[in-house]
Parts: sequence; structure tokens; C-alpha cells
Amino acid sequence: MKLSVASAMIDAALAEATRLKVTVCITVVDAAAWPVAFARMDGAPLGVIDVSGKKAKTAVLFQMDTAAFAKIAHPDGVAYSLENTNGGLTSFGGGVLLKAADGAVAGAVGVSGATSAEDIDIARAAARVLSA
Amino acid sequence: MKLSVASAMIDAALAEATRLKVTVCITVVDAAAWPVAFARMDGAPLGVIDVSGKKAKTAVLFQMDTAAFAKIAHPDGVAYSLENTNGGLTSFGGGVLLKAADGAVAGAVGVSGATSAEDIDIARAAARVLSA
Amino acid sequence: MKLSVASAMIDAALAEATRLKVTVCITVVDAAAWPVAFARMDGAPLGVIDVSGKKAKTAVLFQMDTAAFAKIAHPDGVAYSLENTNGGLTSFGGGVLLKAADGAVAGAVGVSGATSAEDIDIARAAARVLSA
Amino acid sequence: MKLSVASAMIDAALAEATRLKVTVCITVVDAAAWPVAFARMDGAPLGVIDVSGKKAKTAVLFQMDTAAFAKIAHPDGVAYSLENTNGGLTSFGGGVLLKAADGAVAGAVGVSGATSAEDIDIARAAARVLSA
Repeated sequence: MKLSVASAMIDAALAEATRLKVTVCITVVDAAAWPVAFARMDGAPLGVIDVSGKKAKTAVLFQMDTAAFAKIAHPDGVAYSLENTNGGLTSFGGGVLLKAADGAVAGAVGVSGATSAEDIDIARAAARVLSA
Repeated sequence: MKLSVASAMIDAALAEATRLKVTVCITVVDAAAWPVAFARMDGAPLGVIDVSGKKAKTAVLFQMDTAAFAKIAHPDGVAYSLENTNGGLTSFGGGVLLKAADGAVAGAVGVSGATSAEDIDIARAAARVLSA
Repeated sequence: MKLSVASAMIDAALAEATRLKVTVCITVVDAAAWPVAFARMDGAPLGVIDVSGKKAKTAVLFQMDTAAFAKIAHPDGVAYSLENTNGGLTSFGGGVLLKAADGAVAGAVGVSGATSAEDIDIARAAARVLSA
Repeated sequence: MKLSVASAMIDAALAEATRLKVTVCITVVDAAAWPVAFARMDGAPLGVIDVSGKKAKTAVLFQMDTAAFAKIAHPDGVAYSLENTNGGLTSFGGGVLLKAADGAVAGAVGVSGATSAEDIDIARAAARVLSA
């Protein structure tokens, strides 16, 4: 995950958040869950800094969007308590897995600060940069 | 738990995982929950490294397989939140308790990366080394 | 610390690092030590991600550049072990305190990945954005 | 870092440790500091399990052997307190960086349990597997 790509994803996410009139944090991690770029919009609650990072981390560590992860880690899911591993993970939408053209995991983007549906929408706007 | 035994269990688990065409992580811990041997198969998601360790730890700390632990630590179980003790435990199958011929706890093996049923199958393949 | 300012500081740091032909991580935090923006240049060692953040945190928490903090927190300094507080701080150059025109603390920038002298130079290039 | 290579490195380390009549722990991590394989020899002190992991992590995160890292992180070194970053690092020998034929970082091996000189010797025996 090059910084130029991660920065373009951050910019795309900021544009989409501005369009939706919400304030969020955005974290982009590489395929091994290490941070590449991060931005906090003016006015975003301080608590969502960490949430955006955990969403990105969760998506890449288990190679699925966090909305899908939420189903298996739910008390009625097949892997209840999975969210307690790896230093704490997040079980709701806003973390989107990034794949390269050949299908390999390229990293993940995590967005937090708005509703879960909006966070997902913003994360997908960022992800489209990779496939453009 | 001797390293020679733990290594033989890892090899048995790898063989069973290969037979099932899945990629997993395997952790073997001793009767005091300290790691003896660990292996990550090529292609296993990074998140399951920690899960395999937590499954082994959970099994040996409460002297039961994690599939049994899941029933008591579930929100509807008799000891809900037990999974939050000891630095975080796992409440789904794939951690198998190991006992010596005389019934004493010998350690545990934790497997993660496939379905819970497959993880359990692989962990049992490893456990059979001890009773062979 | 507005995101627009923090982003401009990141850009200035990236330009200076490119001029020096080094690869670094840059973290900008606000006056309460919370991250605003972060970037990792391609090829920077993974270990310096955390170092850049700790440098920025150290500078803002004690309201001095980390090169100054290093003198008091050194084993021969007046406050040896101060570096072990606040979850771990850094005692070498590369964290630069940011002040507003009226002298109030505005945040800090932390740079890591090159020599300490280069890290300081890059952090100062970022800091000049604030006073421009 | 493939498991087959990491396992061969563990075996080489065990053979060298046996030759030296010492008992150690060996951890092999990939280029992003994630564990691939681990082994604890019978009789190794429990405390060195974590030390072997931290040595491998330190080497790969800063792209140098831990004996070299020790010089810069020493109280009189250029980056005192660097050992307090990244969740705690180790500033003495026994972590050896692994490079591929093209010079790219391939991972690291960490050995702990004997004297530092012996730990280094054992780690180098493991590293030779990669270049063989």
C-alpha cells in the first residue's frame, strides 16, 4: 500500500464525508495491518480516532468487511468473543477490506464518526480509488 | 509438555489441515498455559495467530475444550463475562484440552483459521498424538 | 489544530524528507495529544510508526521539544524515568512543539525514520507551516 | 516467510543449541513482524519465551540485529528510550534480521535462553538456512 494511494483514499473519504455533512476519522492500513495514513476531520469525537483504526485492523486481520465480521462475532454468531482477540476488534460496519486487481489483500480502510451506514459509504468511496 | 511431543502434535495438525485443504495456525501450550510450539500455515489470515493462542490458553485455564467453555461464557450461560477474564478468552470451538494417561492436565492445543468444526477436527488430530 | 493545517504540515514534512532523500513517518497531534493526521512514507521501517507518534505525544505532554526532554529524562538528568510515564515517551530529537501566534500550545509534530538531526529538520519544516 | 523455511530455521537453531548444550526459545517472524513459527526447548526458563519474540520483533521493526539496536537505544546512544516504543523492545543480542537474496527484509529470528553470544550464534545458524 503506497502512501500516494492511501492519501488519495483519504481525500476521497473526506470528499464523501463533506458531501454527507458528517465528520469522521479515516485510517488506511497495509496488508499486515500497519498504518499508512490517518486523518481526523474537525469536530469528530475523540473516541472515534481509535475506532477507525480498529475497524481497519479488524477488516484486514480477518480478510472481511467489519459488517460481515459483526455477524460471526455476535453473541449468536459462530465465533462469539472473536472481537476480544488481537487487542480488541470492532464488530460493526465501517471497516472495508481492500483487494488488488489480482484478488490479493492490499489493506483496509476504517471510517468512524457518523452512522454505520454512512461510515460504510465513506469507506467504500475511499476503496473505489484502489479499483479506479 | 516436551517440545518433541508438541512438535509431533503440530505436524499431525498440519497433516490434517492439508487433508482438509484449509490453512490454520496451531498453538500448543503446557499445563501452566505457557507456549511450547506454534506454526502458521502459508495463507492463514493474520488475525488467527492470536486466536489459536487464546483457544489453547482458554482450554487449559478452565480445563475444558473451548466448545464447552462457549456454553457457560455465552450471554445466556451460567458464567457470562468469564471470557473477559485472564486478558481475554475465546468462546468457540478449536481449543482442545490435553490429558496424560493418568488423567492429569498436560496442556492444550488451539487451532484457528478454518470453520469451527474443522478447527476442532484438526485440534483432535493433534491431541491423538498424546494418547498414541 | 485543524485538519487543513495538519495536512499542510504533513505535506511540508514529506517535501523536506524527499529533498533529504530519507523516508520517515510523520504524526501531528493537537494540544491535548490526540492525533490529527499521520503519514508513512514508502519504505520507512515499521518500527518508526510508533516512534513518530510518541515523539509528538512527548513534546505536547511536557510542552518542549523531545531533544530538550531527552536532557531531563536521561539517567544523568534531573527527571530520570520521566520517559516511563504516560505509557512510554521518547527521549531523543524529532518531536517539535507547535505554538500559536499568541504563544499558546497548538500541538506537536513527531518525525522518525532518519537521523535525529534530519528528523528534527523535517519536523521544523512542518512547524514553519503554522507560523507562515 | 513460508512456514517450510521458518520450520527449517527452527530445526537449525535447535541443532546448534543442542551442540552448545544450552536450552533456548526460538521465534521466527515475517517482514511485518507477525509470528510464523516458535519453539521452546525443554528446560528453558519461562521468561525467555517473550524475550525471543521481542528480539525477533525488534530486529525486523528497525531492520537491524538487536546487538546493533542495543548501541543506539543505550542511555548513551543516539536514541535512548527507543526500546520503550512498539510495546517494548529488547536492547541486547539474539535477534537477527533476515534478508532475501535481493536484499529485501524477509523477517527475523529471535533466540533467548543462553548467553547473548550463544543466542546470537544460534540465531545465525538459523539465518544460514535462508541463504543456503
